[in-house]
Amino acid sequence: MIELAADRYGKAAIRVVRVVRAAGRPDRIRDLTVAIALEGDFAAVYTDGDNSLTVATDTMKNTAYAFAKDHLDGSIEAYAEALGEHFLGSPQVERATVSVREHAWRPVDVRGAPAPGALVRGGDLTRVATVFAGRSATVVEAGIEDLVVMKTAGSAFSGFPRDRYTTLADTEDRIMATRITAVWRYGTPDVDADALFGSIRETLLEVFAEHHSPSVQASIWIMVRAILDRHAEVDEVRMALPNLHHLLVDLSPFGLENDREVFVPTTEPHGLIEATVRRGAD
Amino acid sequence: MIELAADRYGKAAIRVVRVVRAAGRPDRIRDLTVAIALEGDFAAVYTDGDNSLTVATDTMKNTAYAFAKDHLDGSIEAYAEALGEHFLGSPQVERATVSVREHAWRPVDVRGAPAPGALVRGGDLTRVATVFAGRSATVVEAGIEDLVVMKTAGSAFSGFPRDRYTTLADTEDRIMATRITAVWRYGTPDVDADALFGSIRETLLEVFAEHHSPSVQASIWIMVRAILDRHAEVDEVRMALPNLHHLLVDLSPFGLENDREVFVPTTEPHGLIEATVRRGAD
Amino acid sequence: MIELAADRYGKAAIRVVRVVRAAGRPDRIRDLTVAIALEGDFAAVYTDGDNSLTVATDTMKNTAYAFAKDHLDGSIEAYAEALGEHFLGSPQVERATVSVREHAWRPVDVRGAPAPGALVRGGDLTRVATVFAGRSATVVEAGIEDLVVMKTAGSAFSGFPRDRYTTLADTEDRIMATRITAVWRYGTPDVDADALFGSIRETLLEVFAEHHSPSVQASIWIMVRAILDRHAEVDEVRMALPNLHHLLVDLSPFGLENDREVFVPTTEPHGLIEATVRRGAD
Amino acid sequence: MIELAADRYGKAAIRVVRVVRAAGRPDRIRDLTVAIALEGDFAAVYTDGDNSLTVATDTMKNTAYAFAKDHLDGSIEAYAEALGEHFLGSPQVERATVSVREHAWRPVDVRGAPAPGALVRGGDLTRVATVFAGRSATVVEAGIEDLVVMKTAGSAFSGFPRDRYTTLADTEDRIMATRITAVWRYGTPDVDADALFGSIRETLLEVFAEHHSPSVQASIWIMVRAILDRHAEVDEVRMALPNLHHLLVDLSPFGLENDREVFVPTTEPHGLIEATVRRGAD
Repeated sequence: MIELAADRYGKAAIRVVRVVRAAGRPDRIRDLTVAIALEGDFAAVYTDGDNSLTVATDTMKNTAYAFAKDHLDGSIEAYAEALGEHFLGSPQVERATVSVREHAWRPVDVRGAPAPGALVRGGDLTRVATVFAGRSATVVEAGIEDLVVMKTAGSAFSGFPRDRYTTLADTEDRIMATRITAVWRYGTPDVDADALFGSIRETLLEVFAEHHSPSVQASIWIMVRAILDRHAEVDEVRMALPNLHHLLVDLSPFGLENDREVFVPTTEPHGLIEATVRRGAD
Repeated sequence: MIELAADRYGKAAIRVVRVVRAAGRPDRIRDLTVAIALEGDFAAVYTDGDNSLTVATDTMKNTAYAFAKDHLDGSIEAYAEALGEHFLGSPQVERATVSVREHAWRPVDVRGAPAPGALVRGGDLTRVATVFAGRSATVVEAGIEDLVVMKTAGSAFSGFPRDRYTTLADTEDRIMATRITAVWRYGTPDVDADALFGSIRETLLEVFAEHHSPSVQASIWIMVRAILDRHAEVDEVRMALPNLHHLLVDLSPFGLENDREVFVPTTEPHGLIEATVRRGAD
Repeated sequence: MIELAADRYGKAAIRVVRVVRAAGRPDRIRDLTVAIALEGDFAAVYTDGDNSLTVATDTMKNTAYAFAKDHLDGSIEAYAEALGEHFLGSPQVERATVSVREHAWRPVDVRGAPAPGALVRGGDLTRVATVFAGRSATVVEAGIEDLVVMKTAGSAFSGFPRDRYTTLADTEDRIMATRITAVWRYGTPDVDADALFGSIRETLLEVFAEHHSPSVQASIWIMVRAILDRHAEVDEVRMALPNLHHLLVDLSPFGLENDREVFVPTTEPHGLIEATVRRGAD
Repeated sequence: MIELAADRYGKAAIRVVRVVRAAGRPDRIRDLTVAIALEGDFAAVYTDGDNSLTVATDTMKNTAYAFAKDHLDGSIEAYAEALGEHFLGSPQVERATVSVREHAWRPVDVRGAPAPGALVRGGDLTRVATVFAGRSATVVEAGIEDLVVMKTAGSAFSGFPRDRYTTLADTEDRIMATRITAVWRYGTPDVDADALFGSIRETLLEVFAEHHSPSVQASIWIMVRAILDRHAEVDEVRMALPNLHHLLVDLSPFGLENDREVFVPTTEPHGLIEATVRRGAD
């Protein structure tokens, strides 16, 4: 017997830009990449070729566009929740997962003032949110991607076991560089998502800057614990940190010293450290 | 109370090329991208900054290089298994996950014969394998990525529900294009991985070519069922198919007909259909 | 005084797929990425904001679509020439440059026969063509991109000068890997472009395989000279070869020998060697 | 007769990071991607396989690393000039072209103050410089890449000619979005490159924000003329602007108005407008 064990389908990479125009204020840009996925009573679509319950992914795309007009006045979390609730309106849908990535724009600065209708894309990170809208509960996750950071001090890696294949030397002072992906889950959807995003980002960067790192693993624990300690709204945090190695260049053949000054940044291979940390039962 | 709920770490994007030289035969190339991840008794690394049990990811990289010399005479599955077993030699490791992607090379053809020492990279897909080496069992998965295919006949999509946001017309004849990711799990690690890879790829392409598709969802079911039907060694198959839409161009403003001839291929947005199918209990 | 020294404009990344359907034969796919650029009497567009002579780039795109219906029965060179001539129909255009990249598809093989309506994208290279359509002459260039090749024998690099910053050892036997970009110019547009493409590709690969390489520079010369020697239709060849270094891994810390067997392929940094070779005046 | 018409070779994608440590100040990061190319008396390398005059590209890489220690206290232009002059020390070199891209980092902000040893990568653009060091003169170019900007007001496109293939409507109010590449040439290498970079960037953004655009072509002219008008040190400017189309979504099927609010940003196809503007002879 052959059975369908799991399935989901949807539309990904939906690009949409909303221009927010208001008299007397510079135009704003909401620049989103949206993905929608549905789970539910869809087995017959697969096994019988029966489309009578298939919400077309083209319809999902149209809905994302229409909701950018009607439901994008607040946070991306609110927009994603509105989309998720909409798709639950189809009774065959058990769960709608709506993921949104927001790309930052800010007004061009002209002689100290924001231009009314000209913007520059930028920022140091991508803000992300995922809403899991289900029949019994809605779960909201928020997060950060593409935040590239480096510690030029306060990072070590030593005391690890050595075997036949170990050549790495212990070091008490290394470069630590990474591209942070951090996703946190709120205990309830009813949060001030914009304010929390700002303060959690601040916590993350502050602790990244100030902690002493004995390993990337320990750095994750320290940063995530700070998020959970300072932000009671957060129940769980996942973090994935590539270790983007910076190799100290041997300048001695050229008669030069290199006291932690000149490095070759590399991406292949890289370390990859992932952990999920949560509030446990007391 | 704050607890570590899950963690794994390792080295990703390890690139290694092995040149296989044998007298009287053209040189062969094994061109791999390897990722290794460990799980086990690593909590103290995170919570206490204690590296005494941390297998350094640099050591993992070195091991992958060394094993490319000693353990890469057969399939990538065998190479990954050897690496996985090696890391289980550290008692704190509960599970080692070793993923390998193999990039295809073949000898340059010179007047009908293979060149002895010149190769061209190519092929239509990337072969992948993942070995989960654990204390109680070893699980082997194999698969295909980056296989881009198109049906110019035998694909329809109709009969789906229509709501306020639906604009897509029913069609009985559309282009279906996708980039196949298929991963199958063997019931036992003791399989002839190279032979099975070839025959499963053949099954996949053959059924892709010959089936009638009422939807991408049904196509997954039909292709995966054929794999399970024809290959008793396979217990479970996961497939992820983006629907790479090809939009029929309206040539009527130019006084031209367009009977399914001229299309604009797009990647943003795309459908994304995912399913896992397995042998169930009878 | 400020003057416009050079200008050109157009549409790039026009994606178009033409399905060629003919009874009794498997469907074929022509999958193109097209770029069109115009030069001519356009100064007023820039300096005066006068669009009265501006062929809209949206119109260029539409024309590329329409010509995929009407003018894509033969080579991409012929399609590009038709487009180029069309744009010369606007008197303000002095030169139209049309570049086409063709992505290869072939029928899925089903039990030894080509499937009628199912194709797989693949191939080892991208075929390219650029037509420069001008008032006095039309020049046709054809070429190859993305052809990744490797020599496991017959490549050396030695005898180069050594200074304070030189650490590379002489070697008589190294891996040479590269991604070939080769563009050749025909003496006249009236060539059998499809046949010539095949035979020049064959020349290139054959000489790549058989020559001894004292350097990437010399390899370019040897390959290009062979193209010019064997293909009288070609007047000039440009080639750009990155040197995709493969670093021999030092396995001696692990007690292993490494006699040109295990390498780490790298892309950053890479050598980059470029040359243009042509028939000169006798 | 077959002749070498042009040739150059070098090393590309040299990645180097310099950490600048100074007591009492936050650490700084100089994060560069460097390319070096040489031209000169190298014909015998190609035609005779004679490496006796070939500066090894590996040596170029080492030199870039060593100069990151010794010659990277000021602008990237000064670093590139130092490298260029160094390679002219080999008499066979006629011209050394050194290109540098600098990736921006700034200290993490911790409660309003810069962290001493933690930085975040970011910024809205990539700063670039190219030095052409020759026997008779050294030419310095500087520039901007990857600056993505949008005008939500003040952009039109109308009055263009209409033919059989024209479907685009005239518009007096469209979104204009682009990724600016701008390269300017200084009249002399003896400029304050850091200060000029800042002020030219400011000019560019200010004029982008404030000008009315009848076309991308006219925008280039207006922006470039402002650079030449305000910055006497600049002799010539090249600009390449893709037109990253934003398509107004038709929301009317959903009963919604869309007064320039909801757009789909696209990248394929895109317009591409390029011009070089210079000071002419009076």
